Amino acid sequence: MSKKIKKINSGILIIGNEILSGRTQDKNVAFISNWLNSKCGISVNEVRIVPDEEKIIIKNVLTFSKKFNYVFTTGGIGPTHDDITAKSISKAFKVRYEYHKQAYAILEKYYGKKKFNDGRKKMAKMPSGSKLIYNPSSAAPGFITKNVISLPGVPSILSSMIENCKKYLIKGLKTHSQTINLFTVESNISKELGLIQKRYKKNVDIGSYPFFRLGRIGVAIVTRSISKAKLKSVNKDLLKLVKRKKIEILKT
Amino acid sequence: MSKKIKKINSGILIIGNEILSGRTQDKNVAFISNWLNSKCGISVNEVRIVPDEEKIIIKNVLTFSKKFNYVFTTGGIGPTHDDITAKSISKAFKVRYEYHKQAYAILEKYYGKKKFNDGRKKMAKMPSGSKLIYNPSSAAPGFITKNVISLPGVPSILSSMIENCKKYLIKGLKTHSQTINLFTVESNISKELGLIQKRYKKNVDIGSYPFFRLGRIGVAIVTRSISKAKLKSVNKDLLKLVKRKKIEILKT
Repeated sequence: MSKKIKKINSGILIIGNEILSGRTQDKNVAFISNWLNSKCGISVNEVRIVPDEEKIIIKNVLTFSKKFNYVFTTGGIGPTHDDITAKSISKAFKVRYEYHKQAYAILEKYYGKKKFNDGRKKMAKMPSGSKLIYNPSSAAPGFITKNVISLPGVPSILSSMIENCKKYLIKGLKTHSQTINLFTVESNISKELGLIQKRYKKNVDIGSYPFFRLGRIGVAIVTRSISKAKLKSVNKDLLKLVKRKKIEILKT
Repeated sequence: MSKKIKKINSGILIIGNEILSGRTQDKNVAFISNWLNSKCGISVNEVRIVPDEEKIIIKNVLTFSKKFNYVFTTGGIGPTHDDITAKSISKAFKVRYEYHKQAYAILEKYYGKKKFNDGRKKMAKMPSGSKLIYNPSSAAPGFITKNVISLPGVPSILSSMIENCKKYLIKGLKTHSQTINLFTVESNISKELGLIQKRYKKNVDIGSYPFFRLGRIGVAIVTRSISKAKLKSVNKDLLKLVKRKKIEILKT
């Protein structure tokens, strides 16, 4: 059985007042995006950071669920009053918010019957029909409801669970990428870079990012493409430009 | 002349493929949000991370400009082909994308007439009628167009410019915040926390965030409110709960 591999995209919904207020620095976007692209060939096309408010979560879950192949949510699946992701997703899809039998059993076993209080039981409540994403760190599972995958907000727990999402995801075309770090300034090469980008149109995405390293100013030229051949070709063109302009390359 | 201070909100639009792809870890959201709240009493209500695509930037700039008192964009104001923020905002507001006389003069002086090439000139092109946000790091100014403030993506440059945004912003009510770090687990206090949150309804926002410190598990209880009195009162209630449950507080 062979499937034709195509472009698969996704959106990430970061749910949490602590990220919006600046109290906590989000680390999940970069982690999820790198993992999705390298392991599943899935691109992240948009990220939204939203507060712990039911109406707002519902609206954004529905928007993203229609717009993208997959939606990843982070945060709001713990035991406290501000953890409203599961309930909000249930309302978004108009399904019951109820105990997931297997999640209940996992958590009851983890905590022991005596210590399995209401707060802990709450973590077994999910949108009806959800499938579980196992959590090797702290037991409380994530879940997938239609095309929406809900993960916790704590980066160390999220990263320990991410491989368990794989079985629910259809693989897409991987975006390959290459970086050349140059000791120059953007305005020295901006015109030529623009012309190269024009030649490769939508086949290659060329990004240019200033950096400061070893006490010197530089520019990282990042090329991204689903075609390895196109990537090779564009990088050949870039190296010609570098040679012509006598620009020093930072060897890493 | 006295103005009645009220709630002022904002949205942040992070423009850049490098953030979406996970190559670069965003640091601007936390920085801008902390600065806005502590220095201007302005809250950040939503963040979106979007790619370097004109149509998408236009749509999101217009959405945020209507939705919030202020919009902050980061990224895409350099000299290369993928820097399309200024042009996109011009199109969004249907104004000319043209040289800003003062920005042109600043950049010409900074680089010197001979070295003021097309790439560098591009950084003086802005939506017609924009006002400048001075850049003490690398000269190229940010700009404000209607209620949209455009800043660069490099965190060190952005942070050196942020104070220069102040004169364009109307100050709002500051949100005060207090944190109590407890050596306990969320599920030990989730029920009582929920009841306290109910009592304070919309006057205080109580957040609960697990942490790992000194080899031990804990929970940070963060309370936020525009009323100092309400904040004091809710923290009194929290300390009563802590005492009753015999929970150890992490002194910082």
